[in-house]
Amino acid sequence: MKNITLIGSGNVATHLGLSLLKAGYSIKQVWSKKLINAKRLAEKINSNATDNLERIKNADLFIIAVKDDGLESLIQQLDIDNIVHTSGSIGLEAFNKKFKNYGVFYPLQTFNKKINLNFKTTPLCIEANNTFFKNELMQIGKNLTGTVKVMSSEQRKQLHIAAVFACNFTNHMFAIADSILAQNNIDFKLLTPIINQTVKKINQNKPKEVQTGPAERKEKNIIQSHINNLNDDKLKEIYKLISESIMRRNG
Amino acid sequence: MKNITLIGSGNVATHLGLSLLKAGYSIKQVWSKKLINAKRLAEKINSNATDNLERIKNADLFIIAVKDDGLESLIQQLDIDNIVHTSGSIGLEAFNKKFKNYGVFYPLQTFNKKINLNFKTTPLCIEANNTFFKNELMQIGKNLTGTVKVMSSEQRKQLHIAAVFACNFTNHMFAIADSILAQNNIDFKLLTPIINQTVKKINQNKPKEVQTGPAERKEKNIIQSHINNLNDDKLKEIYKLISESIMRRNG
Repeated sequence: MKNITLIGSGNVATHLGLSLLKAGYSIKQVWSKKLINAKRLAEKINSNATDNLERIKNADLFIIAVKDDGLESLIQQLDIDNIVHTSGSIGLEAFNKKFKNYGVFYPLQTFNKKINLNFKTTPLCIEANNTFFKNELMQIGKNLTGTVKVMSSEQRKQLHIAAVFACNFTNHMFAIADSILAQNNIDFKLLTPIINQTVKKINQNKPKEVQTGPAERKEKNIIQSHINNLNDDKLKEIYKLISESIMRRNG
Repeated sequence: MKNITLIGSGNVATHLGLSLLKAGYSIKQVWSKKLINAKRLAEKINSNATDNLERIKNADLFIIAVKDDGLESLIQQLDIDNIVHTSGSIGLEAFNKKFKNYGVFYPLQTFNKKINLNFKTTPLCIEANNTFFKNELMQIGKNLTGTVKVMSSEQRKQLHIAAVFACNFTNHMFAIADSILAQNNIDFKLLTPIINQTVKKINQNKPKEVQTGPAERKEKNIIQSHINNLNDDKLKEIYKLISESIMRRNG
C-alpha cells in the first residue's frame, strides 16, 4: 500500500497527508468539494487535485477525512475499495458493508492546518472489517506514529467524547478567560504559568485529586460573587453549572 | 522586612513559605486553626507553630493565606500591622482601614501542597493602601518571582474569574474525561498528546481562533449523538451548554 488518495482537504487531511508523505507514501489524489481547497492541499504534498468524485482513480488506500455530518452521504457515492474514514464518532457500520475492505483510521489529535504538529506522538486508533485489512492499517499506522491501538467503534466514540471535554471544551475555557481579560485590559499571557501547571499536575495525578479553586473549596460566597461579576448570562450559567459539578463530584 | 509570619497552612501558605525561605526570609510563626496543620508546615520551613491568634508575635510582615470564606472574620480578630492577604477575589476593603499598612499579595497559580512548583515563573499581583507599603511588597515580590504586577482589586477579581475558567474548570474537564475513559477501560494517558497540543496552540494564537471539535464545525448530529451517549444528566447538560457557547461565539 504505497499510493494513497485523500478524500477531504481540511485540518485532518492536511496533517495526515504531510505525515504520510514524510513516511514515504505517495499521495495520488486529493478530492475536495471545492477545487481550490483540493489544489491548495495537493500543492503541499506533491499530489493532484479534483472536485469530481467520478474522476477518482484507483489507489491502494482511500482515506476519507471530511466533516462527520457529511461522511455517510459521501460514502454512498463512492465506488472504490480499501477505504477508511478518520472519524472518532462514526462507527464501522457507516460503510454499510458495501466494500470488501473498510475500516477506521482515527488520529486522536486537535488539528489545525496552520499549526505544526508532531504526528509521531499522536495516538492512532484503527478498526477494520477483516484481519487482513486491519494488519495493513496497522503497518501504515506504525510508520506514522509510536502509538497505534486497535479499538472498537463503541470505545472510539467514548474516547472522542472524552477528547471533546479534555481538548475542545478546555480550549473554550481558555477563550472565555481571554475574553474576560481583554475586557479588562489584562494580558492573557499572565495565565500561561497557571495553565502550564494545570497540565503538568495531571501528568502524575488523577485530575480529580488535584482540583483547586472556589468550587473545590466550596466557597459559596466567592462563587456567587464571581457569577455576579460576569456580564453575560451564558457565562453565568456555565460558571454555575461547572462549579456545581465540581462540588458534586467532590462530595 | 525579613521576618514573616504566615497565617494559614494550606496550599498557598505552604508554597509561599517554601519560596520565601528559599529567597532568604525567615518564617517567624505559622498559625493555623488546627495546631497539627500549623506544625506540619512549620517543620518544613524552620518555623514555630501556633493555633492561638493571641499568641501571634510581632513580625515585619503578616501574610494571611486562608480560604476566602473565612478571611474577613479572621481579619477582624487580628491586632497587628503590615498585613496582606493572598486572595484574588477579595478586595483591599476587607481590611476595613483598621491597619496602618495593608495590602494584597496574590500569586496567580494553582497550588497543591504535594506538587512541586517553580514559583519564579508565577505572576504575583500586589496592591497596597499606601506607596511605602506597595514598594515594600514589590521588593519582596521581586525576590520571589520574575513577574510582579500592581493591580487594583477590581482587575484582580476579573483575573481570578478568568483563572477559574482557564485552570479550575479546565481541570474539571480533564476529570470528566478521565471518568468517561475509566468507565470504558481506556487509559487517560492516551489524551496526553491532544492536551499538550491544545495548550501549545494557544502560546501563539488566540484560543478562539484555534477552536476545533464538533461544536466548532456545527455538527449537530454528532453533538446530539454524544449527548445521547453520556450516561449522566449533569454531563449531558454541561456538554450541551458548552457546545452552544462555542457555536454562539463562532457566529
